[in-house]
Amino acid sequence: KINGDRLWDSLMDMAKIGPGVAGGNNRQTLTDEDAEGRALFQSWCEAAGCTMGVDTMGNMFATRPGEDPDALPVYMGSHLDTQPTGGKYDGVLGVLGGLEVVRTLNDLGIKTKHPIVVTNWTNEEGTRFAPAMLASGVFAGKHSQDWAYAREDAEGKSFGDELKRIGWVGDEEVGARKMHAMFELHIEQGPILEAEGKDIGVVTHGQGLWWLQCTVTGKDAHTGSTPMNMRVNAGLGMARMTEAAHQIAMAHQPHAVGAVGHCDVYPNSRNVIPGKVVFTVDFRSPDLEKLTSMRSQYEAKAKEIADELGLGLEIEPVGHFDPVTFDKGCVSAVRSAAERLGYSHMDIVSGAGHDACWINDLAPTAMIMCPCVDGLSHNEAEEISKEWAAAGTDVMLHAVLETAEI
Amino acid sequence: KINGDRLWDSLMDMAKIGPGVAGGNNRQTLTDEDAEGRALFQSWCEAAGCTMGVDTMGNMFATRPGEDPDALPVYMGSHLDTQPTGGKYDGVLGVLGGLEVVRTLNDLGIKTKHPIVVTNWTNEEGTRFAPAMLASGVFAGKHSQDWAYAREDAEGKSFGDELKRIGWVGDEEVGARKMHAMFELHIEQGPILEAEGKDIGVVTHGQGLWWLQCTVTGKDAHTGSTPMNMRVNAGLGMARMTEAAHQIAMAHQPHAVGAVGHCDVYPNSRNVIPGKVVFTVDFRSPDLEKLTSMRSQYEAKAKEIADELGLGLEIEPVGHFDPVTFDKGCVSAVRSAAERLGYSHMDIVSGAGHDACWINDLAPTAMIMCPCVDGLSHNEAEEISKEWAAAGTDVMLHAVLETAEI
Ligand SMILES: NC(=O)NCCC(=O)O
Ligand SMILES: NC(=O)NCCC(=O)O
Repeated sequence: KINGDRLWDSLMDMAKIGPGVAGGNNRQTLTDEDAEGRALFQSWCEAAGCTMGVDTMGNMFATRPGEDPDALPVYMGSHLDTQPTGGKYDGVLGVLGGLEVVRTLNDLGIKTKHPIVVTNWTNEEGTRFAPAMLASGVFAGKHSQDWAYAREDAEGKSFGDELKRIGWVGDEEVGARKMHAMFELHIEQGPILEAEGKDIGVVTHGQGLWWLQCTVTGKDAHTGSTPMNMRVNAGLGMARMTEAAHQIAMAHQPHAVGAVGHCDVYPNSRNVIPGKVVFTVDFRSPDLEKLTSMRSQYEAKAKEIADELGLGLEIEPVGHFDPVTFDKGCVSAVRSAAERLGYSHMDIVSGAGHDACWINDLAPTAMIMCPCVDGLSHNEAEEISKEWAAAGTDVMLHAVLETAEI
Repeated sequence: KINGDRLWDSLMDMAKIGPGVAGGNNRQTLTDEDAEGRALFQSWCEAAGCTMGVDTMGNMFATRPGEDPDALPVYMGSHLDTQPTGGKYDGVLGVLGGLEVVRTLNDLGIKTKHPIVVTNWTNEEGTRFAPAMLASGVFAGKHSQDWAYAREDAEGKSFGDELKRIGWVGDEEVGARKMHAMFELHIEQGPILEAEGKDIGVVTHGQGLWWLQCTVTGKDAHTGSTPMNMRVNAGLGMARMTEAAHQIAMAHQPHAVGAVGHCDVYPNSRNVIPGKVVFTVDFRSPDLEKLTSMRSQYEAKAKEIADELGLGLEIEPVGHFDPVTFDKGCVSAVRSAAERLGYSHMDIVSGAGHDACWINDLAPTAMIMCPCVDGLSHNEAEEISKEWAAAGTDVMLHAVLETAEI
């Protein structure tokens, strides 16, 4: 078993970097705080005897050597970046849980045939630079590095420039590494495990996603002196499209969700009818047909709303992945580890996207989930117990040991 | 008649300060650009032989002396501040038109019994600091100066601190001045005069307004892993309330308008269900009963929407004025000036709020409107012709001469 106190202390130490305003974290990707978190993680890995490699997307790989020089490594990892008002565990648990596995192997003097690598994937959250899971996506060949470098944040700063600015452009070619397998431990970010009273979620599938960025164009005009019938109100269009996204998700129940999380109104003045609104619809389902249907229904409905109000409309997909089926062998390694350790468990579908979803296309991959209080995530109040964190990491230790071979 | 070319040149010179991004202006109140615009106006007034007084709200008063030391001054004026994406004429025409009247009187060597004062009222637009017409409101005793000083912009900077920072806290007690009468020249900001082919709008009334700032509180949560029935989506609440504001205004036709121009979503991340949205509804009508009815219907409907979605809701009125009836004598001075000069004219209701609406409570007041292209205002593309500007200023000259007595 791993050392739950040591793991918890490391989680709390990392949470000191980029504190939020309400007990959580704001350590968004490629900020100074991200750089500080990376440096701390590197120092911990080196203290645990690992060698750090960094690729040109800033992905970090801490290697604990194996006994067979020809054996491909077994990977563990997740991400250290957070939402602007994020929690202390989303992503971080998977990275520091991986480190805790290495520390435990060191404590017990266990050698493995396959090397073991702990990874921190760059820009998983996708808030500052869309899409989410950007750097694992480039690693998996889903996006080109040039395209990723050109992604811009709300201030027009590019991913490439910001990665350089914080000093984390590595020298490894992205995606050159080969993998024997990969495991990602993550908090559930949803309410199911807690409600069912289970310690461990054995993640068999992941939902697919469409992020549709909508730009609605009307005409800035005075809210007082412009008659109702002369308005071209982009804000009203946004309101109707937000409702439409909700209704379409509701019409695809169960196993489908939809919402608008991001919305910028221009010029955003109390007495100006909005001339432009940019917002993003997030649709998800584990069922590809439902996912595709939600997108096409929304596009048609949004067009209808825009036409009715005389608005311009552009819809740009800024994030997408298909539903994922994780590797049977890795999944059963997770399930039998939980079984062996006596943790209650259940099969579960990941509601969120994860780096593991991309890596699953390259190598056998699985995920381990632990509960979080009230299913709350992407919220500074996100919380888990020390015991939940330890149980998930124990399961990862055993699944990795089975896969990396003692 | 006034000198239309000189007036136009001054308008174009002022427009160089705080240029916008699309041919208009961004010279928001109490910015460095506002300070620069004030300094230019002061230099022009002094060159025209006026003495400048400034009150503790930053209101500027340029006085051309009269012949009777006991006669109260006749005021002209409007505002030099603009929307974030504003036009070159909204407010500016009324200030520089006043200056042009003084310059013309100087050219012609005309002396008046009553002194003549050209005024620049601080923070008419109300975008940076709500409410609109803030400083004329304090002058008219509608708000206390302390309350006005404490108004904050989106960054939490206060009106009082910013007024001090730009160096325009004057030494005159606000509201201490007494007035014989006041005239405000302004572009219509609506489509009626152009559509009716009239040179001059004789403004008989002004619409009343309610600005209702709504804070909707839900729960930040993950857009992917939070089931639809567990969401407390403040963004969806905002969308429904925005639609409700529109529907309520439509149900009060004719002579009523309603829209949401300002909307801030928190944390504004693509994969976070909004935990909070702050937005402002703007309702207006020249009919007090309709105005009151829109507000109360909206408050009830918004409450219903919030309850249905489990959202918190706070509604704070951040701007209000009742419908206005301008002074009969001043209005007929405007009408007969237009008549005498041979300009086509019609009576009109102001759709926007203006400093004149507050001053009307203190002294006989009227407004003169000139057309603007396509009725467009609060838009950088706001446009008027040199002839329209000159006609409006001619009418103001004659109305002021009648009132200030030669
Ligand atoms: N795990 C997680 O929240 N990832 C961000 C991508 C997503 O929105 O699913
Ligand atoms: N004239 C003008 O646009 N004033 C701003 C206050 C309002 O919104 O009516």
